[in-house]
Amino acid sequence: MIERLCIVGVGLIGGSLARAARRAGLCRRVVGVDADAANLQRAQALGVVDRGCADVAEGAKDADVVLIAVPVQATEAVLAALKPVWNSRAVYTDAGSTKVNVLEAAERVFGSLPANFVPGHPIAGAERSGVDASHADLFRHKRVILTPAAETAPAAVQRVAELWRGAGAEVSEMEPLRHDQVLAATSHLPHVAAFALVDMLGREDETEAIFRYAAGGFRDFTRIASSDAAMWRDICLANREPILQRIEGLRDELGQVAALIASGDGDALLQLFQRAKAARQRFLDLYENNHHAQ
Amino acid sequence: MIERLCIVGVGLIGGSLARAARRAGLCRRVVGVDADAANLQRAQALGVVDRGCADVAEGAKDADVVLIAVPVQATEAVLAALKPVWNSRAVYTDAGSTKVNVLEAAERVFGSLPANFVPGHPIAGAERSGVDASHADLFRHKRVILTPAAETAPAAVQRVAELWRGAGAEVSEMEPLRHDQVLAATSHLPHVAAFALVDMLGREDETEAIFRYAAGGFRDFTRIASSDAAMWRDICLANREPILQRIEGLRDELGQVAALIASGDGDALLQLFQRAKAARQRFLDLYENNHHAQ
Repeated sequence: MIERLCIVGVGLIGGSLARAARRAGLCRRVVGVDADAANLQRAQALGVVDRGCADVAEGAKDADVVLIAVPVQATEAVLAALKPVWNSRAVYTDAGSTKVNVLEAAERVFGSLPANFVPGHPIAGAERSGVDASHADLFRHKRVILTPAAETAPAAVQRVAELWRGAGAEVSEMEPLRHDQVLAATSHLPHVAAFALVDMLGREDETEAIFRYAAGGFRDFTRIASSDAAMWRDICLANREPILQRIEGLRDELGQVAALIASGDGDALLQLFQRAKAARQRFLDLYENNHHAQ
Repeated sequence: MIERLCIVGVGLIGGSLARAARRAGLCRRVVGVDADAANLQRAQALGVVDRGCADVAEGAKDADVVLIAVPVQATEAVLAALKPVWNSRAVYTDAGSTKVNVLEAAERVFGSLPANFVPGHPIAGAERSGVDASHADLFRHKRVILTPAAETAPAAVQRVAELWRGAGAEVSEMEPLRHDQVLAATSHLPHVAAFALVDMLGREDETEAIFRYAAGGFRDFTRIASSDAAMWRDICLANREPILQRIEGLRDELGQVAALIASGDGDALLQLFQRAKAARQRFLDLYENNHHAQ
């Protein structure tokens, strides 16, 4: 049982974990820290947190588990604010979408990685954000990746894993760099591609005339282009190299498809599309297997 | 009232139009033509067509409206098969995803464009295909673009438009080349990009490990990569130049995003992502306005 859970950043992720932890009876009290006073008030009014607090150190002081759920570029400032009240008996974790940069930030702040800091990433985004979008079921059947380092205490990893499992998530561990590479492929690249395609079409004079004839396929393909722009700027800057490699790979692949179209090589095009379709089916099988209980 | 509606190609599109026309009381008899005997039998068993027929000329002989709903590369062969029984009192239309190549095919077959041939495109794809996936509501609130030429008889256009409107669609007219350019932007490019991205990830050694951590955003972004591979090969070859231009445009845009990430230009990245998000909202407003009755 967590006596006092502190959530720094009571948005979609932080708010949803607070709701889930409370519902599962995993914690007695939830303290929410947020720089946005209106958001904090809203979180209290919704019953997501018991107490709101504008100051990180004050809110986290007596907590036994602290979740940092802020935009990934803000993590270092939060760690620095936590440093004066850092408690060796407490456990700290984060929910940032990139992990190498979070480990680097912790090393910069503390000199070396604290044994009770467990970097993590719940893979449960949504276009909507803010505490109003939060709900206790957000993490059900979702994956949470923890990226402990050699210095991280196994007991701390265990405690954080239990919290996420209690919220319904499936927890696994991964090397931080590996995490960033995998997410660059399956999340960051698709987001960049969707933003790029919609921006390209949206900048044209006749955008409305074009969009008027777009259908359900376009709607789904571009759904992630409605994601939070500032969050994705941060992710792109935080995970620069893996994302750049993936963008280059996609540009190459598009060039190959273009070459096949230009030369009229129908057989090779068919093979490529069939291969893609089969690969997506492999993804769907894994995805639906993981979500079978929903 | 159509006495005899002939559907050449009783798949998702042809089967759905037959069902819709029948339900709306727009036609007395539906004759289905399909090279696939099993599919034709299935269409009869489902009551989608009254009579099945393997031969195009025989099936279309006494029809007053003929819909060609075959893969776009097969249209020319169907037109050639129709030529001997081409009836000046009947109206002919097609449902191909590209239109310039269909007009060119008709000109090759007939020497000039028949006044009673109205090229058309119902924008109502789906990953599923075949008569089993067909349903009478497929075209409700969907757009159908007709691309008549100067030679096309207005009465023929009118008749085809009424058929689609009777099936619940919103019908508009467009220049054939313009159609192909608009669809290259909103449909063909997203399909190529989704196929390319999934193929790129699917060819790697560790595909399963990567796919395992992909989430709902990836599922939606890649949904169209589950589309029929042969159909998309045909579309790419039929609409070569507009698609190649769009692929090049996307590669350029991805290059620009990569340059912003590489140089760490967060402000410009934020602007681009915000612009894309706003553009998608403009699309959504148009899309939802069109689908408000659903």
